[in-house]
Order: sequence, then C-alpha cells, then structure tokens
Amino acid sequence: MEKKPETHLQETDFSKWFLQAIQQGDLFAYGPVRGTIIFKPDGYELWEHYQEAFNKKLRAEGIRNAYFPMLIPESYFLKEKDHVEGFAPELPWVTEAAGEELEEKLALRPTSETVIGGAMSEWINSYRDLPMELNQWANVFRWEKRTLPFLRTSEFLWQEGHTAHASEEEARERTMRMLNIYADLCENLLAMPVYAGQKTPSERFAGAVDTYSIEAMMKDTKAVQAGTSHYMGTNFADAFDIKYLNSDNQHTLAYTTSWGTSTRLLGALIMTHGDEQGLVFPPKIAPTQVVLIPAGNMKKNPDVLDKLKDIKRDLQDADLRVRLDDSNNSAGYKFNDAEVHGVPLRIEFGPRDMENNQVMIKMRDLDDKEALPLDGLVDAVKERLDKMQTRLLETAKEFRQAHEHYDIDTLEDLQAHIEKCEANGERPGWILAGWDGTDESEAAIKEATGFTSRNIPFNPPMEKTVDLYSGKPAKHTVWFARAY
Amino acid sequence: MEKKPETHLQETDFSKWFLQAIQQGDLFAYGPVRGTIIFKPDGYELWEHYQEAFNKKLRAEGIRNAYFPMLIPESYFLKEKDHVEGFAPELPWVTEAAGEELEEKLALRPTSETVIGGAMSEWINSYRDLPMELNQWANVFRWEKRTLPFLRTSEFLWQEGHTAHASEEEARERTMRMLNIYADLCENLLAMPVYAGQKTPSERFAGAVDTYSIEAMMKDTKAVQAGTSHYMGTNFADAFDIKYLNSDNQHTLAYTTSWGTSTRLLGALIMTHGDEQGLVFPPKIAPTQVVLIPAGNMKKNPDVLDKLKDIKRDLQDADLRVRLDDSNNSAGYKFNDAEVHGVPLRIEFGPRDMENNQVMIKMRDLDDKEALPLDGLVDAVKERLDKMQTRLLETAKEFRQAHEHYDIDTLEDLQAHIEKCEANGERPGWILAGWDGTDESEAAIKEATGFTSRNIPFNPPMEKTVDLYSGKPAKHTVWFARAY
Repeated sequence: MEKKPETHLQETDFSKWFLQAIQQGDLFAYGPVRGTIIFKPDGYELWEHYQEAFNKKLRAEGIRNAYFPMLIPESYFLKEKDHVEGFAPELPWVTEAAGEELEEKLALRPTSETVIGGAMSEWINSYRDLPMELNQWANVFRWEKRTLPFLRTSEFLWQEGHTAHASEEEARERTMRMLNIYADLCENLLAMPVYAGQKTPSERFAGAVDTYSIEAMMKDTKAVQAGTSHYMGTNFADAFDIKYLNSDNQHTLAYTTSWGTSTRLLGALIMTHGDEQGLVFPPKIAPTQVVLIPAGNMKKNPDVLDKLKDIKRDLQDADLRVRLDDSNNSAGYKFNDAEVHGVPLRIEFGPRDMENNQVMIKMRDLDDKEALPLDGLVDAVKERLDKMQTRLLETAKEFRQAHEHYDIDTLEDLQAHIEKCEANGERPGWILAGWDGTDESEAAIKEATGFTSRNIPFNPPMEKTVDLYSGKPAKHTVWFARAY
Repeated sequence: MEKKPETHLQETDFSKWFLQAIQQGDLFAYGPVRGTIIFKPDGYELWEHYQEAFNKKLRAEGIRNAYFPMLIPESYFLKEKDHVEGFAPELPWVTEAAGEELEEKLALRPTSETVIGGAMSEWINSYRDLPMELNQWANVFRWEKRTLPFLRTSEFLWQEGHTAHASEEEARERTMRMLNIYADLCENLLAMPVYAGQKTPSERFAGAVDTYSIEAMMKDTKAVQAGTSHYMGTNFADAFDIKYLNSDNQHTLAYTTSWGTSTRLLGALIMTHGDEQGLVFPPKIAPTQVVLIPAGNMKKNPDVLDKLKDIKRDLQDADLRVRLDDSNNSAGYKFNDAEVHGVPLRIEFGPRDMENNQVMIKMRDLDDKEALPLDGLVDAVKERLDKMQTRLLETAKEFRQAHEHYDIDTLEDLQAHIEKCEANGERPGWILAGWDGTDESEAAIKEATGFTSRNIPFNPPMEKTVDLYSGKPAKHTVWFARAY
C-alpha cells in the first residue's frame, strides 16, 4: 500500500498547505517551463467567472475589449525610460523565427502600455476621439526569480485597461473608478475584503505618476496586492506622441491611465478562504456550487438516484452549478472529495431522507448539518448559498480586523512584536504606521523586518502622526506588512 | 480638401476590397511586428460572440476549458517526428530571458499537442480517467511568409481541443462530432455554408492519422479552410507516453484527437457576406445589430431624440445590441457609417414618422426601405433580423452553387475553364473532380492551375469516377479550388 502523503497544516506551514490545497483541489499543475503553470478546469473556471463579472462592469462603463499583439519590438520599450528600466530585468525575448535571426528582438509583453500607446497615437486625432478606453484579456510574461503558483508565475493571465483623456481630472476619475470596481469585485464576488489606497513612490508602476492598489490580507497575514490602477499623467503620451487637436485647434498631449487584475486574484482567493480541509470557495465564484451525494447503496435503491437526478435538474434550472457524485466510491470518500474541491454546499440524500421528504445539507464553512424539506428546496439552497457568500466576507473581515495593529509606533516596537509572534507561533499581521514620506524610512523598515509599505489607505482605521522609523512627523498613514 | 481615397471594388480587386472593408469597418489595425494585427473592438467582439456560442456547445458536450503554458521547450517538439517537421519552419523562439541566455530554447506555441500530451501522460493512469477532454482559448504563433489580416497572421487567436480515449471508435466519434459542431456554427451563427470532408494525406495535420475539415467558398470563389478536426490514432500517445491501465490491468496507449477553429473565421465571415458598400454581418454575430438614426434637425425636435432613446431601451431590454447615432453628422454620413460597419438593421425616425407612429427600417442586405408601426416594433425588428440571418445563409449557398463545377473532367478542361473565366472577368469557382489517390495527381493539378485539393466531401453533389490528371479510375471525389 502506498504511503499516505504527509498532511500540511495551514496553521504550521502555510506555504506547503497552499500547494497541497491547490493540488488536491485540482486547480493547477506545473508547466514544463520554470515558473509556468497549467490552469486545470476548476482553476480556469474561477477565472472565467471573474471575466464574466468584470466584463459586465466594463459594459456598464462603456469600455470595450480589444486585443493587441503579444510581441513588442525592443525599440518600443526604449521610448519610456522609467518603463524600460522597470521591466527590462524580467523580459523574455524572441530572437529568432522561422530559422532566421531577427533584425530586432521582440519582447513577450509584460504589460501593453507601449504597444497600445503606439496604436492610440495613430487613432487619436481630435478631442472628439477622446476619451478612448480599451481593455484586453491576455497572457503576459515576467521572468521572476521566485515563483509561486497563481501568485507569481512566469506567464500569467490578466486584464489590462488603457485609457486616454483630454483632461487630468477625467483621467484621474477613471483611475479611481476602476480601483473602486476592483474593490467591489473583490468584496462582492471573491468575498475578500481589501484596503484601497495609494502606493508610495518606491512601489509605483514603472512610468506612472500615481499608482493606486487594493491590498488583501491572507490567512498567514501576508498581503497580496490584488489590483492596481495607474494615473500616467502625460508620461506615455509624451513618449508615444499621443496628441489630439483640442477645440482651439492646438496639438495637446493626452492624459492616460492603465489598470489591471490578474490570475493572482485566484491565489488570493484560496489563501483568504481555505481551511485545514482544503479549498473553500465563495458560492458566486465556485466552479461547483452544490454537490449531490447519495447515501446508502445506490444499486439497492435506484429510486434514490432517480430522485437525486430530479433535484439536480431543478437546481440547474435555477442556474446553479451542480454535480452529482454517482461514482462507486464510499460516501466518506465523496464527502472528502467535495471538501478538498471547495464546494460550498453538499446535499446528502438516502432512503430514509426519501421517506421523510427531506435532504441533509452541509455548508463547507460550517460544522453542523441541517435537514431541508424537499418542498421548496431550490429556494432554500439559494438562500443558504447567499448567506455563505456574506458570511465568508464577514469572516475574512473579522480575521483581518484581528490581525491589524494600530499601536506599534517605533521600529523597536515592531521588532519586538514580530519576535513575540514568532515565539508564540502567531502571525505578525499588518501594522498601521506613520510615514514621513521618505524612501529611507521605508527601506530601513523593510531591511529590519521584511515589512513593506502596502498602501496609504483612503480610509485608514485611524490617523498616525509619527514616522515609525525616523520619529519625525508623519505625512501619511500607511499599511505595512510582509507581502507576496 | 483631402483627396478622397480610391474605392476598391469587390468585383475587380477582391484583395484590396477586403483590406478596405475591414479598415473602414474598424475591425483591425496592423501591429508593430510583421504579420501581426490589432483586433479593434468590433473585430474582437465578433470573436467574443463566437466564443460564447462555442463554449455553449462545449458545455453540452461535457468538455471543459483549461489553459496551458504558451512556451514549449524544444525537446517537447522533437518527440513527435512528423509534428516537428511540420511546424519547425514556422516557429518563433525565445532564446533569452531576464538578461540571460536560456539553456534550452522555447517555442511560442503554434498548437499545443505537445504540452497537453505531456500533461495528459501524467494525469491519465487508469481507464477511469478516460475520456479526458479539454479545450483552451489561446494565442498561437506561426511565422508565415505571406500574411493577410485575419486569414493568416503571425499571431492569431483560436480554440484548440484535445482529447484522449480508450478506444479508436470513441476517438473517431469525437473527431466527427467536433467537425459537425464547427459546421453547425458556421452555418447557423456565421451564415456561412461549408463542405465537411476528409483532407487528402498531403494536406494532413503534422502527426495526424486522419484530418477532416470544413471548407467555405469566399466571394472571390477562393476556399477558406474554416476548421479542422484530427484523429491522431496513437501517434501522440506513443510520443508522449499517454498510457492507461485498462480493466485487465494492462498498460495501453490512448487514442487522441485535436480540433481547432481560429480568428481566420472572421476573415471568412467578411469575405462571405461583404458587398460593394463594405461589411455585412449576420445578425447573430453582429457587434451592433440595430442602429438608430434621427432624421431632420435634432435640436428643433427634441421629442424625436427622446423617443429614439425609448426605442433604444426597448430593443436593449429585448437583448438586442443597439447603437443610437446622435452625433452631429448628417443623416447621409450616418447611413454610410452604419453600412461600412456592417450593421444589419437601420432604423430612421423623424418628425413625420413621429406623427405617423412609425419608423422606417432598412436592412443592410436589401435595397428597399420599409415602414414599421411603433406598436409591436421590438417583435417586428427581431423577426426582420431572424429573416436576414436565414437569408444571408441562403444567398451564400446560392452563390456557392453558382460557382461549383461538376463537368470538368480533365486538366485541359480545367485550364480552358480558367482561361475563359479570366478572359471574361469571371471567378473560376470550385471544381468537383475524381482523384486517383496519388500525391502526384494533386501536385500536377496545383502546379498547372493553382487549384489544390480542399477535401473529400462526405456528401458530394455527385460522384466522379475518373482522375482529373491521370485519367485513371478515381478513388475519391474531391473539391479542388484556389485557397487562402
């Protein structure tokens, strides 16, 4: 008999727990090239549900999808100095094709500001062409040293929006609206609370004037930057000559923005809700929302299976994603299988339930089972799923709240806090701290503790007045945390 | 005043007409790298509608989407001899990344049999794991010498399905089912008639046992291979070690299939329905299905615009894709704009129409206008769109029928036919001819006329008995045509 693999606990080894959870849950496999992953059907379907929800938001905003070429000539990158400096260390390059060396090497896009900037400069002529607002769904490439499935991969999937505007005000408004849309989807689709805020200059996107982010706390209390929105000012317009004739017939630089979310959201989703039994999916995004499991011997009770098929059809007709597990495995095996796959609601049904005109249900995030009458089952199931969606967000908010620290005012306090947590096997959490606005202060905190500035939240739980490192008056209140 | 650009006629210069139609219709722009294109919003939306329709078919078949890495190590390609020979001449290669030369160069996928074959070999252990059936939506790369927007581009978008089965019979059934689904979507979504059939060995996919295709006739009577489905036998299972334990506990090679359709479908769509006024889209796939155009002076008649907004909302509520052109351009300009964008149905509405409680409609493919009462307008519009969908397919079938030739029995006859067509400014069409099964015969016909074998149709209009070139008894009846 094969040796049962060791079980990794979330509590004691979060990294190994994560890999175990996504493997047992069939979300991914490693690809043949370093840092690449295969999105298996459940993993990809999570992304499809996110796409559907985001596309709906885009339509409401009047922003359309397009698709731009993946290969970007080296000369395009050289046009915006900060941009090329930021991305050059991570680029893979095509240098030969069809048996010949290329005259100019071609980057695999890490992001598309350059190629879209080039196109916009041709498409925009007059103020009547503005705003121009486009989004694309694409694969992108960043050759990073440390990789982790979903969170940081050599190739990943994302959406990137790019807009050009006639005024700074309008461009800034678009930057903020998209950040708010990201926050809304995180909270209401992924049940993942986030803090929206501004990045410090050292964490700014290469080429941006201002970068904004949403930051989420994982169950190991590390932070994930779950989405970013950038106000570019006229930096890219200047580099790519995105000019328009204004109403006074003058050539004027446009103001541009870009904003993106990626498949790292899926990693964050898992690290937000997963538990010691494995994956836990919020109902709205779960690939399978309800699993039906027959109790007792199916061959002796064909009626039970027939009735389960009826229930399955009823639930599907109500637009629920349902799976009937009629395999020959034991009920215990099936329960476990549904759990590791993160299915929100499990229905058990056997001969005795049939007699009693009921089913037993078990929510993935609750301990107790509940009996539900067959009569009105669809509505009851929907209600339970809605409640779970809300509950997961509340639970995540409570977890976050419990790991936020507002009373750490010096670097020494932070170091002592970290030491105490390590000694007690506790997570260090996030700290809200004052910041004097200098790179020096951020660098010193990072060097000493591994905590980096996450963002300057728009709505901090409180205002901090003194820089954690320098003791000087704080210019901003900042979230600091270890991060993925 | 700017010189008006020359208008290219479909009748006299089909290639230039095509480029003009897709440019005026805002479907695409050239990318910065040779042979690449930008899918502008209308162009990309066509693809999104196709994706939606195909995903629905996949769900009904129980086939799920996944996503595999784009970069494929050279060693993977070397595993299947025919496959590497077929694709090597067209591959772009990544040879450096993050400032360092790679130890093994990485191909940009031209198709994913190799990487998916490698994954399946790990995932498939027992007969219980079969069939394994996956699809992916992805960008692929083929560095071809002659490129043409949508039809043949260095990077294109497609779906590729890959399945593994326990029996040849089941694998062959999957191959055929997918071909039929492609034919169904071409006819019922794109209103584009196709002939389904088998490719001759010289036109087979690199590594396949049998390749099947659907072939469509463009308005210049050239053929487009609109989709392919391949039965691989055990070729890839052997190369990638895709084996399973059968019910007798023996290691057994799986039978695999693959099948794909790409954004070249969009090129075929345009070349099937476009006319001298530009694009013509079948309603089901049109990015905008109905355009509303106010007649008369909008400022003098604000009621007209208000009423148009009501009509727009009513049509949108009925799930139609509607645009109201309330720009300051003239009505004539707006009519032309709607035409070049291929909008199926145009509604004109002015003060007199308001008095008469009616609108005027104009179908993109018909000459006459029609008055429709405001009462019951939504249903009437839907009915006109449905009829147009059917009509476009019928029109395309009639066009195809008119350009099929069954009575050309020798190469000399074919050459004479082509000469006559060229002298009269007519299109040479397709010919149905007997084929003795030899590469020699196909090669001689291609050399002499540029006609290539399209496929051996399952349901030829008639059976041919003599090879066109050799005069020997025919083994198959084959469509020959010039092709994209």
